Amino acid sequence: MLAQDFRRLAMNQAAIAAMKEPSDDDAEGSTDTEPSPVNARPASMDLDPLSRLLRKNKAWSAARAQEDPDYFNKLLNQQAPEYLWIGCSDSRVPANAILGLAPGEVFVQRNVGNQATHTDLNCMSCLEYAVKELKVRVRNIIVCGHYGCGAVKGALKLPSKTTNLVNCWISDIRQCRNEHRSELMALPTLEAQIDRLCELNVLRQTFHVATTSTAGAASYRSRMDAFNAYMNTMANDT
Amino acid sequence: MLAQDFRRLAMNQAAIAAMKEPSDDDAEGSTDTEPSPVNARPASMDLDPLSRLLRKNKAWSAARAQEDPDYFNKLLNQQAPEYLWIGCSDSRVPANAILGLAPGEVFVQRNVGNQATHTDLNCMSCLEYAVKELKVRVRNIIVCGHYGCGAVKGALKLPSKTTNLVNCWISDIRQCRNEHRSELMALPTLEAQIDRLCELNVLRQTFHVATTSTAGAASYRSRMDAFNAYMNTMANDT
Amino acid sequence: MLAQDFRRLAMNQAAIAAMKEPSDDDAEGSTDTEPSPVNARPASMDLDPLSRLLRKNKAWSAARAQEDPDYFNKLLNQQAPEYLWIGCSDSRVPANAILGLAPGEVFVQRNVGNQATHTDLNCMSCLEYAVKELKVRVRNIIVCGHYGCGAVKGALKLPSKTTNLVNCWISDIRQCRNEHRSELMALPTLEAQIDRLCELNVLRQTFHVATTSTAGAASYRSRMDAFNAYMNTMANDT
Amino acid sequence: MLAQDFRRLAMNQAAIAAMKEPSDDDAEGSTDTEPSPVNARPASMDLDPLSRLLRKNKAWSAARAQEDPDYFNKLLNQQAPEYLWIGCSDSRVPANAILGLAPGEVFVQRNVGNQATHTDLNCMSCLEYAVKELKVRVRNIIVCGHYGCGAVKGALKLPSKTTNLVNCWISDIRQCRNEHRSELMALPTLEAQIDRLCELNVLRQTFHVATTSTAGAASYRSRMDAFNAYMNTMANDT
Repeated sequence: MLAQDFRRLAMNQAAIAAMKEPSDDDAEGSTDTEPSPVNARPASMDLDPLSRLLRKNKAWSAARAQEDPDYFNKLLNQQAPEYLWIGCSDSRVPANAILGLAPGEVFVQRNVGNQATHTDLNCMSCLEYAVKELKVRVRNIIVCGHYGCGAVKGALKLPSKTTNLVNCWISDIRQCRNEHRSELMALPTLEAQIDRLCELNVLRQTFHVATTSTAGAASYRSRMDAFNAYMNTMANDT
Repeated sequence: MLAQDFRRLAMNQAAIAAMKEPSDDDAEGSTDTEPSPVNARPASMDLDPLSRLLRKNKAWSAARAQEDPDYFNKLLNQQAPEYLWIGCSDSRVPANAILGLAPGEVFVQRNVGNQATHTDLNCMSCLEYAVKELKVRVRNIIVCGHYGCGAVKGALKLPSKTTNLVNCWISDIRQCRNEHRSELMALPTLEAQIDRLCELNVLRQTFHVATTSTAGAASYRSRMDAFNAYMNTMANDT
Repeated sequence: MLAQDFRRLAMNQAAIAAMKEPSDDDAEGSTDTEPSPVNARPASMDLDPLSRLLRKNKAWSAARAQEDPDYFNKLLNQQAPEYLWIGCSDSRVPANAILGLAPGEVFVQRNVGNQATHTDLNCMSCLEYAVKELKVRVRNIIVCGHYGCGAVKGALKLPSKTTNLVNCWISDIRQCRNEHRSELMALPTLEAQIDRLCELNVLRQTFHVATTSTAGAASYRSRMDAFNAYMNTMANDT
Repeated sequence: MLAQDFRRLAMNQAAIAAMKEPSDDDAEGSTDTEPSPVNARPASMDLDPLSRLLRKNKAWSAARAQEDPDYFNKLLNQQAPEYLWIGCSDSRVPANAILGLAPGEVFVQRNVGNQATHTDLNCMSCLEYAVKELKVRVRNIIVCGHYGCGAVKGALKLPSKTTNLVNCWISDIRQCRNEHRSELMALPTLEAQIDRLCELNVLRQTFHVATTSTAGAASYRSRMDAFNAYMNTMANDT
């Protein structure tokens, strides 16, 4: 059913692509045509690049179902995670794996550079959903940074060395760098600067979370005597 | 070192909180004071709520290091994931677990409702980083939806039943609902509407990814003869 | 034609509003129904509240056309403003009026608190359009602040005293306050703090503009020997 | 004082620019240095490009003060606009001029393509501020489109013909185009398509405003019997 739907959407897209374009574009039209999912997609709908993944997914599903035939029904009917994890998109810091948590135990927002700025509706709505809908306790919110972070490296480079949207996205890390430039400039190597800025960044993002009205209001309500937004800086930080 | 830093930031925050407030706030000041991390934080820095997690993290780290003493060095020095996964924050859909992938293999963006709208710098910068910096092939981008999605449920409710920021965030799912309302209204139950809208949403988000200039440009460059942004709708969709 | 279109959209919206809602909402449905433009809109399409404005608009149009019968044709066929103005939404700082500029002379972005943060696609796309499409020279970009700014006042209040989205939006002014808290706290009155923070804010936003890759790249290209992003702090700052 | 401050910020920026860069950047460093406001800014702080504007601003201020010596004091002490205007950044549609309103009468958000999407914190916080802080009545919210809009033209072009951030920003207009493609494709010329899409866009954005929880909640509260978010499509639409 999904394959059919996608094909139907692709048809619509082809119709769109066929819309009359400004005549001054005609000349280069042949070399710069829009990607048309319809033309581009072979009739066989070849799944090859992802077939390894899908097989792995099926193996994983089968293993769960064998352990507990009711596994997916139970999972489907409830989501009651105890934790919210805000971490980096980096492939080396998957929340569940490094925390040893099972599916169902942690609500997750991952983005480039583990940012939690107040103007990012993606992260802020995730925080709001966790606290207000799922009733995750504020002290169970984790902002997780890691050393060697590419976003942090980017923030130490010239903007012209970084791609456009990423450049915009990491501006809060650049602010962090600017505020701590004396400390950073005193460090002997670029590597040391990067690692220190990784630490400063996770502290800054934790501070952002702690000063949201969402997390703040929750902590008033529950009359907690401690506001705990901890961070776990690195998988191997043992 | 981090604990010290956090305490220093907390001091700054306390200084901020102590700033003179408008006099008309004085009356209620005593019942509605800002959370002051300094006051709130006991001297012992009690890690209790997360100590279980940190122990699990250490156990995981130790196990990796025992298997391969060089594990973390290798991980630290390279990030070369083959896949980009855009999925839901929902605790039940952790990318690595359900795909059977190890740390280092998949770059991840997770948000409420697996959205990939063009105006969301969080997701778009993640896509740009994956494609331009990490050279993830466009055909290896996965948008993953799942049934029973809370964001999709929210989009079928009145806005007044949903919290503020989440309400803003799920507007693209509401657009999706509006475009397909005839089909949705013909379904017999709310559950059936939710599940169908989960499917329509993942198709829509995949379409968004496929029409970004980032993914489009990449596909031109690599002269791929197929544009493949697949989706995997559910862990148990075997 | 527009009135008809709006009615048609309203019909669609009514259809949406009539969609089956979750049964647990039924009880309160009668008191908390969604605004239905169709029901709400009287058949006469009463324009009263805005009729004064529309009359003024027609008077203005008529005056322009009398001065120069070709006025609107000329205006319609070209947009070549010399300036980009980033200023506050505040009703007291209309760009054209206070600069004495005619329609067609200045491209404008106005938001709460004259913000120009790198993650705000609204302002950043406006900057990009001005510089790359309209070829506004970088030295002709103006960030305009003003004293007595409500957004700045909000940033000096507790988050709990400010409404939700505004609270998120003004976070960069809060950062500005935090960085300059010693200076601000030394000031004798709240009014003095507000006015000083208005100044610091416009300097900060100008700095943001000056460090965008859009404005930076443009200044490289044109081999300008001066990078000038000035600000004009107040209408009456003569 | 402001010039001094700006020079101080510029100094800081120069310090930042002087930070150690990755060694692989050294080679091209000389041709691609970051704009350093300090170096770039001549000692004389030459105001030439804007001096015309500043003179005009002073003339305007002087004229106001001559008419009413208390003009700016009155303006400074109150902001109570009756209207909220959401319009395009386009230089040809300045709100106050075309509506014949004085400073103090209309609160304004202007962006590329007069967008009002629910995920844009810039516009949504402006709407919230207008309705909740300034008590602008919902029926006095105006979304103003105009013919010949550059953002709308961009949405009819291939993404590859539009600059990067603008491309992301206009995605809601592209959605609008996609939903109405049959109607648009039936039109004989590109100009007719542009003009029709300008109309459809302003209707769509008005609908977005009307379905926000901010505007919705306000209309419940005031028990208005009409929800009126009108639009004024063009200055010369008399």
